[in-house]
Amino acid sequence: MILILKANTDTSGNAYSQLMNNLNELDGVTISTHSIKGAEQVLSEIYLLGNTGSLGIEEMQSLPCVERVVRISDEYRILGRHKDNERPIEFNYNGVLFSQQTLNVFAGLCAVDVPEHVDQMMEHLQQLGQVCTRMGAFKPRTSPYSFQGHGKKCLPWVFELAGKNGIKVIAMEITHESHIDDINHALEESGQATGVMLQIGTRNTQNFELLKSVGRQQEFPVLLKRGFGITLEESLNAAEYLASEGNSRVIFGLRGMKTNMADPHRNFVDFAHVPVVRRLTRMPVCIDPSHSVGSRDYSSDGILDVMHVTAQGIIAGANMVLADFHPKPGKALVDGPQALLMDELKYFFDDIALVRTTYEKRVQAAIDYTNQHTN
Amino acid sequence: MILILKANTDTSGNAYSQLMNNLNELDGVTISTHSIKGAEQVLSEIYLLGNTGSLGIEEMQSLPCVERVVRISDEYRILGRHKDNERPIEFNYNGVLFSQQTLNVFAGLCAVDVPEHVDQMMEHLQQLGQVCTRMGAFKPRTSPYSFQGHGKKCLPWVFELAGKNGIKVIAMEITHESHIDDINHALEESGQATGVMLQIGTRNTQNFELLKSVGRQQEFPVLLKRGFGITLEESLNAAEYLASEGNSRVIFGLRGMKTNMADPHRNFVDFAHVPVVRRLTRMPVCIDPSHSVGSRDYSSDGILDVMHVTAQGIIAGANMVLADFHPKPGKALVDGPQALLMDELKYFFDDIALVRTTYEKRVQAAIDYTNQHTN
Amino acid sequence: MILILKANTDTSGNAYSQLMNNLNELDGVTISTHSIKGAEQVLSEIYLLGNTGSLGIEEMQSLPCVERVVRISDEYRILGRHKDNERPIEFNYNGVLFSQQTLNVFAGLCAVDVPEHVDQMMEHLQQLGQVCTRMGAFKPRTSPYSFQGHGKKCLPWVFELAGKNGIKVIAMEITHESHIDDINHALEESGQATGVMLQIGTRNTQNFELLKSVGRQQEFPVLLKRGFGITLEESLNAAEYLASEGNSRVIFGLRGMKTNMADPHRNFVDFAHVPVVRRLTRMPVCIDPSHSVGSRDYSSDGILDVMHVTAQGIIAGANMVLADFHPKPGKALVDGPQALLMDELKYFFDDIALVRTTYEKRVQAAIDYTNQHTN
Amino acid sequence: MILILKANTDTSGNAYSQLMNNLNELDGVTISTHSIKGAEQVLSEIYLLGNTGSLGIEEMQSLPCVERVVRISDEYRILGRHKDNERPIEFNYNGVLFSQQTLNVFAGLCAVDVPEHVDQMMEHLQQLGQVCTRMGAFKPRTSPYSFQGHGKKCLPWVFELAGKNGIKVIAMEITHESHIDDINHALEESGQATGVMLQIGTRNTQNFELLKSVGRQQEFPVLLKRGFGITLEESLNAAEYLASEGNSRVIFGLRGMKTNMADPHRNFVDFAHVPVVRRLTRMPVCIDPSHSVGSRDYSSDGILDVMHVTAQGIIAGANMVLADFHPKPGKALVDGPQALLMDELKYFFDDIALVRTTYEKRVQAAIDYTNQHTN
Repeated sequence: MILILKANTDTSGNAYSQLMNNLNELDGVTISTHSIKGAEQVLSEIYLLGNTGSLGIEEMQSLPCVERVVRISDEYRILGRHKDNERPIEFNYNGVLFSQQTLNVFAGLCAVDVPEHVDQMMEHLQQLGQVCTRMGAFKPRTSPYSFQGHGKKCLPWVFELAGKNGIKVIAMEITHESHIDDINHALEESGQATGVMLQIGTRNTQNFELLKSVGRQQEFPVLLKRGFGITLEESLNAAEYLASEGNSRVIFGLRGMKTNMADPHRNFVDFAHVPVVRRLTRMPVCIDPSHSVGSRDYSSDGILDVMHVTAQGIIAGANMVLADFHPKPGKALVDGPQALLMDELKYFFDDIALVRTTYEKRVQAAIDYTNQHTN
Repeated sequence: MILILKANTDTSGNAYSQLMNNLNELDGVTISTHSIKGAEQVLSEIYLLGNTGSLGIEEMQSLPCVERVVRISDEYRILGRHKDNERPIEFNYNGVLFSQQTLNVFAGLCAVDVPEHVDQMMEHLQQLGQVCTRMGAFKPRTSPYSFQGHGKKCLPWVFELAGKNGIKVIAMEITHESHIDDINHALEESGQATGVMLQIGTRNTQNFELLKSVGRQQEFPVLLKRGFGITLEESLNAAEYLASEGNSRVIFGLRGMKTNMADPHRNFVDFAHVPVVRRLTRMPVCIDPSHSVGSRDYSSDGILDVMHVTAQGIIAGANMVLADFHPKPGKALVDGPQALLMDELKYFFDDIALVRTTYEKRVQAAIDYTNQHTN
Repeated sequence: MILILKANTDTSGNAYSQLMNNLNELDGVTISTHSIKGAEQVLSEIYLLGNTGSLGIEEMQSLPCVERVVRISDEYRILGRHKDNERPIEFNYNGVLFSQQTLNVFAGLCAVDVPEHVDQMMEHLQQLGQVCTRMGAFKPRTSPYSFQGHGKKCLPWVFELAGKNGIKVIAMEITHESHIDDINHALEESGQATGVMLQIGTRNTQNFELLKSVGRQQEFPVLLKRGFGITLEESLNAAEYLASEGNSRVIFGLRGMKTNMADPHRNFVDFAHVPVVRRLTRMPVCIDPSHSVGSRDYSSDGILDVMHVTAQGIIAGANMVLADFHPKPGKALVDGPQALLMDELKYFFDDIALVRTTYEKRVQAAIDYTNQHTN
Repeated sequence: MILILKANTDTSGNAYSQLMNNLNELDGVTISTHSIKGAEQVLSEIYLLGNTGSLGIEEMQSLPCVERVVRISDEYRILGRHKDNERPIEFNYNGVLFSQQTLNVFAGLCAVDVPEHVDQMMEHLQQLGQVCTRMGAFKPRTSPYSFQGHGKKCLPWVFELAGKNGIKVIAMEITHESHIDDINHALEESGQATGVMLQIGTRNTQNFELLKSVGRQQEFPVLLKRGFGITLEESLNAAEYLASEGNSRVIFGLRGMKTNMADPHRNFVDFAHVPVVRRLTRMPVCIDPSHSVGSRDYSSDGILDVMHVTAQGIIAGANMVLADFHPKPGKALVDGPQALLMDELKYFFDDIALVRTTYEKRVQAAIDYTNQHTN
């Protein structure tokens, strides 16, 4: 059962503490509180888990601060889209808005290497008015003998360069709970020069202990990628681990499925699931075209496959894009062959803008069509 | 080795027969001739297969009618895109042009049921200026106890209705070589009221005997669908069976891969392979959004998944679309739940037109970008 | 609805024709008759398909020749294992008995090449008292430019050599209905020197037209292999196409699933489905270790992977084995690298005999355990 | 490069410290020491990683304590089977020996529930002379709202009961590094009443941080299960993470692949990879029939599928078996439907013993065959 509280409920006020007293008296019920900072207001929800069958909706609705009560029994309790709860998950992090209505592109380096490259990347982004990027410091690698990323050592100068270049949000994969502290600490040291979106990769989609740790903090939003060889339902349930611990600022990332049926692409591109995830849940949906395609091959029309699948994600409503770029792909420490070039950055953003505009026209046409056919 | 003949070579003329005499003398070499009727001219190619290692390129180039000689050793010999042979596969069938540059939409009935529905479907198409449709008469079904299509009995009235409604090409699956004769016969009876594109479904992608039969006739173009559980390379090799028997008027169809990783979609949508097939081969590429998605679910933006994945195919350069419509989906004999409605037909075509225009802008932008960066 | 007739019912007798007259009067009911020659008697079943809901079981049971009536609604109507119909599918072909209780090994050449090799293979088999073999004449190949088998040309001398060497049954893949006639004709010419089990390969599992043709003849038993990328249920439904046309002498073949998750094996070995197919249907189950594994690699215990997976199939109750051997694998035209050697033939059969004996002990132990625990 | 030290080298002695001094002077070389306690002696290996190209084999062989030097460049450096290093990974833990030559069966509870059931399980094992079991305390579950295991709370009484019933090794999944301490602590409190094999499940196969933590401790041996949707090669590389951190006492576990092609089994049983893992690496190989099959279905021969696939693993050389049992499956908190019954325990062990004996005869036959054919 979800209690949706009145907008901007003061959680330090009397009414709220009276509410909590009432709830704490309920037998066999676990209470979990969620607070989501939207563009203009703070929304609070209280989840009652466990023995809630006997609680009356009207009774709960009469408690202080409560605006609406939703009984849930469906999957994806918190992040899911339910009949009585279609409220968008919308959040503002460090000045950047994320929801199923927005589009944010995170072009950047798959793996941080040297300050010069990081600086060049960010400068190019700033010139195009971009405030988001991706930067990998902690790299999970198939072999223990491969380069594992520069780790926390590089965080100070990466964050400093981000601040210098006006970057507001860096998507950064973490593979261990201690990395949250590493990032927190380095951000503090940098005077909060930038912000970080914690990224959980496909190898850790069902690393539930990591999900719980990341879910327990509410500072950083989270990008959770779909698992390699599990169903979409299982991956969405994994996102629910984050939410059930208190963090609903979750973006769900599609990155393809591992199978040789995808050849010559590296993974089987799964961006047809963009509309599915948006239907089943209220999460914004991210696509990762670089890792899905894994090469710089061109189609016969002169367009890169990476750009084609990016367009496929966006034309169907994707809300976020991760894209690998590198000033000198030949020198990239990880996944150089799939990286786009600095020269291609503006071209890439222009292509995305064109397709996004078309997507918005499609949405308007759907509204028009529906209006015509329901009147 | 391919001998590309001069445009509009007269195959009943002296020069041509002299050429053939020369070729017939070659030892251990099989000769296969291909003639492709383009928009404005007829292109002929002669394939020399077998023991061609000792033939000199200059020697062959000096033979009558020969414009150019290409030595091939790559996969997909005839349909593939090779360094020395990027000539488009472009063909005109019954007034409709097919190539990697065109887009043709085949909306229609998954399975022919009653004349009334077929007529309604075609009338709606004609009103929108459409001349292509899909109509299933021979239906391969998982269980022998399911409805297997009306078969050849329905062909006369289907073709007659097509003629009445200005339909030029009907995509129609066949599952046995005798169906070619059935279709040929019924078309003749109808006074060639319409045309047919033979469709080979995913269950028969590697039914090589059927491919050979279909490849031996040159009357009808062929739509070959990707196989369920085989690699893309294997499916493209299957297309080569058609071409190696003499019919290069082949369109390759993407229709998703069967795996529960696709859930809740019926198949794992594989339209990210649109640019791949266009790169590896010279065939036009078709997408089948209805069978890939298999439902009428909507995304949170009010757009049907079927329309989203259609847009994904087109934004990446698809050349043909198969789409299931039905006047009364509840009464459809096969796959009713995924069918779009007559009311949605114009909306569907408008959406496709919008996305296709955007695709063309993307191609132009790629040309512009390339020009800027190579000067 | 199935009418199980009395054993050894004379289908040319009066009682039978009276029965048929009665059945032919039923409205909306299709009649399909099945006759299975067992070790000692002929069993006949009549399938009533379609509008059978209104037929009474007692009424039907009172018709002449009818021993028992089973109402069916389940999948795999004819070949399936149903509550009321657990009667084994058991048949004798050319002196060899096939059922879920027997084990027959078909060692032989993947592709027929020269008489010398065929003769050597068969001689070795005869020395070991074997009367079955595999010999591929019609080879479906991924590329049209690969060797496609010697086809019907080789049948006369293959059959003659079989006769000479006491071979009773040759498993031989066919890919077109005309191959049945080719085989029939060549067998006749040879004076029925041997027998043939028609094999339908994984590429044609859902080539329903071929299945229907093969199902319509009752001379040859059929080995149907599981399809590459379809579910087990779909493959078992394909077997039902054979039975629904009249031929229930069907053996179901497991040959692995195509996916790189199987690496370094060629296919993902699926012999864990041996007990499943035996539970769901009454068909004997065949395994194809050679094509599943696709190499001659050894485990650290000195045993070939091919022999290990063979043992895995047999320890779980497999009833038939296809195995590639070749006198000179280096000269084999198809799949040489996976072939076992003549030297290994006795060792291979000894291994199978050892494991089969153990399987039989396991079955006895299961009976003993059940007896102890139900008394 | 691996330096294999003389047997029973005293690592606190002078010669060893002289060796280490020499190695520490090498530039750009990381040193990793491995010590494996075998049945009768302690084997030590020193891994030199990084810039080892310039080191001479003879030079290194001349250093104190060094018996042999192996230059490695292959995958699976430590755990792999290399030309120059076929030395078995053999270890004794708490009196139980593990290697590619042994077989240990771990029957037990998928999830610990109440002391009564744990005690019953262990008592039954003791009666059969078994000293190993499985007991799940930390359960990773798809949904955050499902029972997650009793966690560290149950460890004291589980270990106490193990001690009481003579259990030497409990296989227990952990999902977080802190669980190692929890287990260590509880074992100490219990007076080392038993031993634990740490199990890393399929969801954490590429949770490299967990692997590193588990690899850094050398107290407990580790059972690493294959990952769901990754290749075998990737899973074997994950095992190498454990070894590269210092713990080579690793057993590799096969547990099937997640795909609906496995239906009606829960996972696609992959025990054909038993001989493969034994060939590619020196690790003992474990099979998990219960989770692979996921049901209590019987074949037509009266044998449970779970027992059939167990037999398939063992007949091909499996070295360890995990099997779910439960005194009252209906009351099991997790995966009850697949559990075997107490009544079936002896029957299960007898079946395993019979098949293992047959396996051993097969190995002997392979040796005999090889001897005959190389003389």
